[in-house]
Amino acid sequence: VSAAVSIEMLRWCDYVGVFVFALSGASLAARKQMDLVGVLVLAGVTGLGGGMVRDVLIDESPPLALRSPIPLLLPAAATIVVMAAHSAVVRVERQVLVFDAAGLSLFAVTGAVRTLDAGLGWWAAILLGATSAVGGGVLRDVLARDVPLVFRAESGLYAIPAALAATAATIAHRGNGLGPVPLVAIIVVAFGFRIAALRRQWTAPHPRRRA
Amino acid sequence: VSAAVSIEMLRWCDYVGVFVFALSGASLAARKQMDLVGVLVLAGVTGLGGGMVRDVLIDESPPLALRSPIPLLLPAAATIVVMAAHSAVVRVERQVLVFDAAGLSLFAVTGAVRTLDAGLGWWAAILLGATSAVGGGVLRDVLARDVPLVFRAESGLYAIPAALAATAATIAHRGNGLGPVPLVAIIVVAFGFRIAALRRQWTAPHPRRRA
Amino acid sequence: VSAAVSIEMLRWCDYVGVFVFALSGASLAARKQMDLVGVLVLAGVTGLGGGMVRDVLIDESPPLALRSPIPLLLPAAATIVVMAAHSAVVRVERQVLVFDAAGLSLFAVTGAVRTLDAGLGWWAAILLGATSAVGGGVLRDVLARDVPLVFRAESGLYAIPAALAATAATIAHRGNGLGPVPLVAIIVVAFGFRIAALRRQWTAPHPRRRA
Repeated sequence: VSAAVSIEMLRWCDYVGVFVFALSGASLAARKQMDLVGVLVLAGVTGLGGGMVRDVLIDESPPLALRSPIPLLLPAAATIVVMAAHSAVVRVERQVLVFDAAGLSLFAVTGAVRTLDAGLGWWAAILLGATSAVGGGVLRDVLARDVPLVFRAESGLYAIPAALAATAATIAHRGNGLGPVPLVAIIVVAFGFRIAALRRQWTAPHPRRRA
Repeated sequence: VSAAVSIEMLRWCDYVGVFVFALSGASLAARKQMDLVGVLVLAGVTGLGGGMVRDVLIDESPPLALRSPIPLLLPAAATIVVMAAHSAVVRVERQVLVFDAAGLSLFAVTGAVRTLDAGLGWWAAILLGATSAVGGGVLRDVLARDVPLVFRAESGLYAIPAALAATAATIAHRGNGLGPVPLVAIIVVAFGFRIAALRRQWTAPHPRRRA
Repeated sequence: VSAAVSIEMLRWCDYVGVFVFALSGASLAARKQMDLVGVLVLAGVTGLGGGMVRDVLIDESPPLALRSPIPLLLPAAATIVVMAAHSAVVRVERQVLVFDAAGLSLFAVTGAVRTLDAGLGWWAAILLGATSAVGGGVLRDVLARDVPLVFRAESGLYAIPAALAATAATIAHRGNGLGPVPLVAIIVVAFGFRIAALRRQWTAPHPRRRA
């Protein structure tokens, strides 16, 4: 019996990742006082953008997000949640960041595994794992005209947990394939790392300056 | 005799769509006081960007825009029109929006039909019809550092006519294929809807707030 | 013996192009006071972005940047250079522009040659040569929330040397293929042209206005 993560399990991780990223996009749109359409579009771009970029680069065609209606329903569900519950959550300014942290961890791992499964090398798995994880959020912030989170030093280490999670998944995937326990462990540790970096404002070094 | 829209007719709709979107990009560039190169680049990105994103996602390779020189001449023509006639049109601030509305309607329909013809499902046809329609304008606005039209609630319903036109084209395409009369009818209705939404400032609902 | 540029030589031009574009991205990130991660991400996007867009559009799969670890090491090297030497170079505000000019010239030529080698027509070679040359810088400026260089008239002619270099490479590639001497000559002339345009502020015409 193979210990490798089943396609089903990977798919569920992707679904959860799409949903939480969509929530982050929808929450940001609501905070920016966009209307229903803006909320839905930003939810869709954030939830599906990173994975689509990855699939185009690994020539997974058509992209997973277009193979069934389900991935498209997830941003719609996130939109409904935010449209209905906005009054309750609008003051929780950190919600965008928490949902984003969850999506970041999930997509880093699934992105790395899917890149390896497409036959690309470990370097591509790390890069595209991190890209899937960061990409949707970058698109979200560019479209909403915010400084992309990946460039906001005051939000704490952001791309580093994604890159580490993608690296860990790439290493763990070798041999018998990534098992379900390491899969979940890597995601949970990366999420915890990101949340800790956010709360404690861990920062990366800056370019050196002359005194 | 098939009632389906010929490849020729679809191509002409795409050409007109590229040209009017290119006009919207060139007009915006002129209003932003860009030079000849800026006008040409923004015309090209707006006219060709949405269709290229769609073609990459449906793995139409190379993208239609690169198969002959004609699609590339259309942004050049739009640039000449705007460079020469700018003085006459610069005060018509709404021109960007009207050209954009025409492109939106044309691309929503051709995008949906091309996605179905590539073998993808109805959900992908609706999403990519709307994406082709909205994508060029989003790229235009991001590059010109404007709030993307799709997020500007005060411009009236924007993505909704695109999504409805893509949905109508997807439904009408089933069976014998989309005939030329429904094709033109859907485009005209979507254009009229968008212009009405613009003039009467129809708006979508906003996320609920506590009183 | 063929006079055509070897695959090796084209690859080296691409490597140098990636590195200098990565330097331009890293320098801009340093000037914007981003941290290590921001510098690395902006270096990577600027160095690899234009070529990836080109490879996706010509269906070169996987993109060259993902076929070996080397292209990914170049932005890392540029990051180290900028992180260490930032104090020495921070006052040289023009450095972003000079590195950008070098990358512009290199990628215009390699982009055109690679597009022709992929079997696309001369029009696509010119467009995608210019797109590879301009694309990484546009992504850099959009992510760093600057006005894209291609739209900044005060920086002098920008896309024109790229388009001319791509056109020259396309013409020279016909027949026996582009030889190493014309390859280098076109790159050097395009670089000199861009630097001259920058220093002397050569400008393109603006849309006509009524008096």
